[in-house]
Amino acid sequence: MATATSPHSLLLQTNPNRYLLKNPTTHSNAFRFTSVRTIPNAAVKPISIKCAGTTTPQIQDRSSAQTHSQDRVFNFAAGPAILPENVLRKAESELYNWRGSGMSVMEMSHRGKEFLSIIQMAEADLRALLGIPSEYAVLFLQGGATTQFAAVPLNICKPDDPVDYLVTGSWGDKAFKEAQKFCKPKLIWSGKSEKYTKIPSSGELEQSPDARYLHICANETIHGVEFKNYPTPENQNGNLVADMSSNFCSKTVDVSKFGVIYAGAQKNVGPSGVTIVIIRKDLIGNAQRLTPVMLDYKIHAENNSLYNTPPCFGIYMCGLVFEDLLEQGGLKEVEKKNKKKADIIYNAIDESNGFYRCPVEKSVRSLMNVPFTLEKSELEAEFVKEAAKEKMVQLKGHRSVGGMRASIYNAMPLAGVEKLVAFMKDFQARHA
Amino acid sequence: MATATSPHSLLLQTNPNRYLLKNPTTHSNAFRFTSVRTIPNAAVKPISIKCAGTTTPQIQDRSSAQTHSQDRVFNFAAGPAILPENVLRKAESELYNWRGSGMSVMEMSHRGKEFLSIIQMAEADLRALLGIPSEYAVLFLQGGATTQFAAVPLNICKPDDPVDYLVTGSWGDKAFKEAQKFCKPKLIWSGKSEKYTKIPSSGELEQSPDARYLHICANETIHGVEFKNYPTPENQNGNLVADMSSNFCSKTVDVSKFGVIYAGAQKNVGPSGVTIVIIRKDLIGNAQRLTPVMLDYKIHAENNSLYNTPPCFGIYMCGLVFEDLLEQGGLKEVEKKNKKKADIIYNAIDESNGFYRCPVEKSVRSLMNVPFTLEKSELEAEFVKEAAKEKMVQLKGHRSVGGMRASIYNAMPLAGVEKLVAFMKDFQARHA
Repeated sequence: MATATSPHSLLLQTNPNRYLLKNPTTHSNAFRFTSVRTIPNAAVKPISIKCAGTTTPQIQDRSSAQTHSQDRVFNFAAGPAILPENVLRKAESELYNWRGSGMSVMEMSHRGKEFLSIIQMAEADLRALLGIPSEYAVLFLQGGATTQFAAVPLNICKPDDPVDYLVTGSWGDKAFKEAQKFCKPKLIWSGKSEKYTKIPSSGELEQSPDARYLHICANETIHGVEFKNYPTPENQNGNLVADMSSNFCSKTVDVSKFGVIYAGAQKNVGPSGVTIVIIRKDLIGNAQRLTPVMLDYKIHAENNSLYNTPPCFGIYMCGLVFEDLLEQGGLKEVEKKNKKKADIIYNAIDESNGFYRCPVEKSVRSLMNVPFTLEKSELEAEFVKEAAKEKMVQLKGHRSVGGMRASIYNAMPLAGVEKLVAFMKDFQARHA
Repeated sequence: MATATSPHSLLLQTNPNRYLLKNPTTHSNAFRFTSVRTIPNAAVKPISIKCAGTTTPQIQDRSSAQTHSQDRVFNFAAGPAILPENVLRKAESELYNWRGSGMSVMEMSHRGKEFLSIIQMAEADLRALLGIPSEYAVLFLQGGATTQFAAVPLNICKPDDPVDYLVTGSWGDKAFKEAQKFCKPKLIWSGKSEKYTKIPSSGELEQSPDARYLHICANETIHGVEFKNYPTPENQNGNLVADMSSNFCSKTVDVSKFGVIYAGAQKNVGPSGVTIVIIRKDLIGNAQRLTPVMLDYKIHAENNSLYNTPPCFGIYMCGLVFEDLLEQGGLKEVEKKNKKKADIIYNAIDESNGFYRCPVEKSVRSLMNVPFTLEKSELEAEFVKEAAKEKMVQLKGHRSVGGMRASIYNAMPLAGVEKLVAFMKDFQARHA
C-alpha cells in the first residue's frame, strides 16, 4: 500500500477525537501528537499539525460500513451515491454551528481561518490516504470530470500534439470526443464493438510513440469495467492520465505512475460539486492560450484552490469522508472490504445458473459498479420494483445499457450487499 | 415589481407548509391549490403543481431576518456569507433523511424523482421571485461567475465580434480581461482612475454601434458600487449582460431588459458551488467551436442543467432560500428591508463628522456591500478586533482596498445592522 511507506504516513496515526473541536481558534491543540509539521502545499497561512512520530495509537473502526439505521434505504445509485452514515451524522450535528464558530460551514468566508483549516486538513488527509508525493499538487475544483475532459488537453498538450485515448466505456469515449477540440487525440483502442466488456492487455495497444499523454478511465461507471493494472506510456516523456471518478479512494494507487488523476467526488468521497485533481507539478504552467482561467491548473495551484470561491461545503464533506477512511485503517483496509462486497455479488450472479448474468470479462469486473441482466429480461422491471419495496433503491441499469446495476461504493455497508444477494436468491427461487 | 404582473406570479401564492413533505412520492399533494399547471421548463418528467388561482393567502414572514439566536455571530463576510437562520435549521433537520426518503439530499441520484422535484421547484420559485419570462432559460451550473467570464463571450459572440465592457470595479475588470481570449472586447468606460467609486450616466458612454453585447457588473462586491438604473445597448441587436453575483435576488429586476444574467449563489441565495444563469433562449446555440462542453449553454439548456451531475446539495439550499424569500413577500419586500438596513449604516457613516468615511458616490452606493474607512486609519485593526469580540465578524475590507466592509446581504438581520451601528457610535465616542 502506497500510504504505508509514504512521507505522509504519519498522518494516518491520528487521534479519533481530533476533529471534535469546540473552538476553531485552537486548531493546533486538537492534534495530540508529539512532533510539529506543516500541512504540505497548505493555503495562505499554514496551520501547524502535530504528529505522533512512530507510536501507533489504537484506531477504532467507527466507519458507517458497520452500521445502518433502520430509517435508511440501501442506496445503490451510481453517483451521487451513498455516504457514510457517521459522516452524515457529523455533518448534521455541525451544520448550524460549526464547532463553536457561530456559523455554518456554508456561511464561512473561504479566506477565513475556519475554512482554511478545513481545506488544509482535507488535503493533508487525502495525501495521507493515497500517499501522494510532494511533487504533486492537489486541487479542489468544480465542474465534474466532464470539465476535466477539456482541462486535460488544454493544460497538458498543444493543439498539434498527438495524444492517445484508450476507451473502455462511455466516459472514456466522452473524454476522447471532447479532446478533439483541443488537440489531435488518437483512439488507440476501443471496446465499443464488444459493448465495453473488456480491457486490452498492454501488448495489444499500439501507442503513438510521441504521445504527450495516454488517457484512460480507471473505472467505467456505466459498464462496470475496471483497470486492475495500469498501462505504461511508451513515450518516456508521456504521461498516464486517469479519470478515477468512480473508483477514487476505493483502493490503493501508486500515484507516482500518473501525470494527472482526476475525479468527481460524488461516488466515493463526497457530494457532487467537487472535483479533485492530482497533478505532477512539472505539468502545470503550460496551458493553451485560449484556456478559460477556471480551467487553468496553474491558477488553481498557485492559489491553493482559492483563486475563486471554491465549493466550500462539498470540500468539508470530502474532508469528513477522508477522515473516516483513515479511521478505517486507510485504503488497504477499504480495498479489502470492497473486494469482499464485490465477490459476494459476482458469486451470486455466477452461481445463478444463468438466471443472472454479468457481461463483463471476469478479470476486469469493477469492484464499484456491478451491471447484470436477467435471463428473463421481462422480469427486470419487477426485480427493481420489488427491491425498492425492500428499501434497496436505484438498482435500475443506466438507460444506455439496460438491465440492473448495483453500485457498491466505499460507503455501502456489507449488510446492504448481503441483503441484495439474499433478495436475488429469493427472487430467483420465485421466478426460475 | 416584475413578479406581480408575470405569468408566474401565481407561484408566489404558496402555502407556507408546502415543503413539509413527509413522503417524496406525494409531491403533487403537497401543493394545496385548486388549478393544475406544470413547472415551466421543467426537467425530464414535469411534476404537476397546483396553484391558488386569484385568491391571496396570508403569507407569514417566517424569515430569519427577524430572528437571531444567541449562539450565532453576525457574519458580515462578502461571500460565502450569512444564510437565513430558518433555512439552516431546515437543512439541518433534513440532512440525514430528506423527507422520509431514507437518504440525504447529498446521496440522491440527480436523475431520481426526489432530486428532480428539488431542482424543478427551485427553478419555479426563482422564476416566480424574479418574474422570469418563459422565453428565458434558467441554468444551475458550477464554476462561479469567473467561469461565466469565459462562457459569455464563448456563447454570445464570435472571435471577431466587437463587444463592450463597462468596468465599475475589480470584477468587471476581470470579466473584461478574460473576454480578451475569446473576442474583441472594448473597454468603453472604467472607474479605475477614480478608485471605482462611480458609475457613469448612459450619456457618458460611447458604445460600439455594432457591439454584440454590453457587459456590466451590477454590484461590485469589493468596491460597493451598484447600478441603480441599467444602461441600454445602443445596438438594437445588442444585449445587456450582467454579472449579478452580489445583488442577485436582493431587489426586483426587469429580466426582459437583459440578454444574460449570471450570479454565483454564495452571496444572497445559497452556498458556494452553484452558479445561476438566466439567458434569453434565442442567444443559446451559437457557441464558438472551441467551447468546452461544460461552458456551452446549449448543452445545459437542452438537459435542464442535468447534462452532468449538478451541485445537488447547493441547488437544494438555493431552493430553500428561494422559498424563504417568497415567504417574506417576494423581492419587493426584500428590497425594502435591504434599503432600510443600508440606510442605517450609510447614515451612521455620513453623520459621524468624518470619523467614518464611505468613498462611494452617494447615488450608486451598494445596498449589499458597504465599504468604509476610519479617518484615523491606525484604528481600523482595533475596530475589526473589537467588533469580532462582540460577535460581529468578517468586517475587514478586501485586501485590495483596505478599510472595512460590511456586507449586509438579504440574510443579515436588521438586528445585526443595528448592533454594528451602535458599536460604531460607541467606538467613535471612545476614540474621537
